Amino acid sequence: MQHTFDIPTSINNMKPETIGLEEGPICPLPFTHNEVIVMGHGSGGKMSHDLIKKYFYSYFENELLLAGNDAAVINIGNATLAFSTDSHVVKPLFFPGGDIGRLAVCGTVNDVSMMGAVPLYLSAGFILEEGFEIITLSKILESMRTVAEEAGIQIVTGDTKVVQKNQADGIYINTTGVGLLYPGSNITGSRAQPGDAVILSGSIGEHGLAVLEARGELGFSSGIQSDVAPLNRLVRALIDAVPKDAVHVLRDPTRGGLATSLNEIAQQSRMGIIIDENKVTIQPAVRSVCELLGFDPMYVANEGKLICIVEEEFAHKALMAMHNTRYGENAAIIGYVTNQPQGRVLMTTTMGSTRILDMLSGEMLPRIC
Amino acid sequence: MQHTFDIPTSINNMKPETIGLEEGPICPLPFTHNEVIVMGHGSGGKMSHDLIKKYFYSYFENELLLAGNDAAVINIGNATLAFSTDSHVVKPLFFPGGDIGRLAVCGTVNDVSMMGAVPLYLSAGFILEEGFEIITLSKILESMRTVAEEAGIQIVTGDTKVVQKNQADGIYINTTGVGLLYPGSNITGSRAQPGDAVILSGSIGEHGLAVLEARGELGFSSGIQSDVAPLNRLVRALIDAVPKDAVHVLRDPTRGGLATSLNEIAQQSRMGIIIDENKVTIQPAVRSVCELLGFDPMYVANEGKLICIVEEEFAHKALMAMHNTRYGENAAIIGYVTNQPQGRVLMTTTMGSTRILDMLSGEMLPRIC
Repeated sequence: MQHTFDIPTSINNMKPETIGLEEGPICPLPFTHNEVIVMGHGSGGKMSHDLIKKYFYSYFENELLLAGNDAAVINIGNATLAFSTDSHVVKPLFFPGGDIGRLAVCGTVNDVSMMGAVPLYLSAGFILEEGFEIITLSKILESMRTVAEEAGIQIVTGDTKVVQKNQADGIYINTTGVGLLYPGSNITGSRAQPGDAVILSGSIGEHGLAVLEARGELGFSSGIQSDVAPLNRLVRALIDAVPKDAVHVLRDPTRGGLATSLNEIAQQSRMGIIIDENKVTIQPAVRSVCELLGFDPMYVANEGKLICIVEEEFAHKALMAMHNTRYGENAAIIGYVTNQPQGRVLMTTTMGSTRILDMLSGEMLPRIC
Repeated sequence: MQHTFDIPTSINNMKPETIGLEEGPICPLPFTHNEVIVMGHGSGGKMSHDLIKKYFYSYFENELLLAGNDAAVINIGNATLAFSTDSHVVKPLFFPGGDIGRLAVCGTVNDVSMMGAVPLYLSAGFILEEGFEIITLSKILESMRTVAEEAGIQIVTGDTKVVQKNQADGIYINTTGVGLLYPGSNITGSRAQPGDAVILSGSIGEHGLAVLEARGELGFSSGIQSDVAPLNRLVRALIDAVPKDAVHVLRDPTRGGLATSLNEIAQQSRMGIIIDENKVTIQPAVRSVCELLGFDPMYVANEGKLICIVEEEFAHKALMAMHNTRYGENAAIIGYVTNQPQGRVLMTTTMGSTRILDMLSGEMLPRIC
């Protein structure tokens, strides 16, 4: 199998422990009971993972949860379903290209889709702050309705709670989704195999920067629009184009960005991943704003992109299928799965060097979803 | 069919419109776009229903949602499932008899059970406030774990978001559940039929008052404990005891209390319900505190009780089965379903008179779940 990347021997020969690779999904972590929640625990990066492993996994320990995917795969009656939840606390509620309503529907539609499932039904739980304007609520509901229609899913059950002023920030929305697994597909974060191609469905970094701009933190108009979109039709096209078990992993690089999602996959699969910086599409405006603010676009959140890890033999078929869909026009093969270094992501840079691309540590942009 | 209640002719002969009965599930309501959310919109009573009908139902209109039950019944593959969501914002987080964790698990386990389904899997979405103590989080997770084990369900997928200080109140928890419908059962709020018995599984009003006491608003210790409990085993016992389609409606009288839930059923079924105040069990401490504070226990929230509407012929069998379960020892037949007055609940009082028992209007105790 010919890959276009060479792994530097110095990194390739490292033993997992020398590069700090965690040995299993649950490991002792440096929390003490005196600690408090900080914004970084919501980043989607290392701090989030540590909190989840140390607390949520240890209390609720079960195989389905510990799989660590975007959605749990559950068997009920004769059906195999994907089941996923996401609470949305984005600030501000409206941003270029979307709003909390569109985000809440797409977030869960996408998580269910990433298990190779057809999302069908959503629940919606609203926490409203006293004094929140009903006209704003209406706009958000209209946005949810519109994108639910686009995605072909139904919102079938809901809940509304109201809290006093200064106990929320206008509106928080939880959506939880169920979908039916494509028969024969077996998509999970632990299935990346050496030689598999890594496809990215489009350009990165737009969502995080669009939200930042909406906060007025840019001080100018960049023209960047959030990419927030439902990816279920893209997933369907791609799965239909290749043999059912050829797609090994799907993941949407949201909080923590592309770098964090690739690291999650590398750790779950105990494989290495090597990507080529030149192959990762970044819009010029995103590149400029990131340079200005000192952000690395590899860590900026996306809400309408996916990573597909597929048998190399079928990578081009998958790519062609993605190119024919609305949200996959700019899909590209950005790298490959390797045996070594286990649990690590490497990137050959535009300068020709290779560096370790780590998981987001701490917190970069709070409340982007 | 002999009932122990007489409906006064004056009420019985009222036409629906003269007693303000709504003609259908969606109707024009007096909201204007200048309005804002107030605490009463979260009461579970009339204001909540109006908001839901005017906005949520009209934007997300679909048959499953409009059924207006505690959970949606969905068909996926060959399975028929109940699917329900609840966000929990109770204040304070710990109260006599429970905490937000126990409440979050039981709330959804019970909503799924109320469709005549076996709850199997739960998702948990956490919104954490910056500065929230991790030791408190641990206690809540332990409580969720314990009651999940008691109920025999698994928490299989989750999400964690963090918001800044003063943008939440410590922790909010959304749980969403899926369960498998008992084959042959057909339980829905619109199936109450004339002559059906109305069973209440135990005493009312404890949860709301326990939360109030925990807020320090009582100024003394009443000894009242919240009844928060998982009712899935009680539902199973009751359904197994009678022919599969003999149970017509199940509902847990949470926000808005017994009176509001009975009104919901009367409206959904377009039937009357008449209950006997003497048959409704109220603990002496609950009665005393309610008298002191001017609350009507009929409107105080419960979190471990259910209303069962069952064919009269099988009412005693159902009752016996409930008596043999942990949370149904004090179950009693409290009334009957009648043809008239459509959509209304009447109560023969301890004084021998009959009065209309309306839905909770406005807000009594905010944030009790």
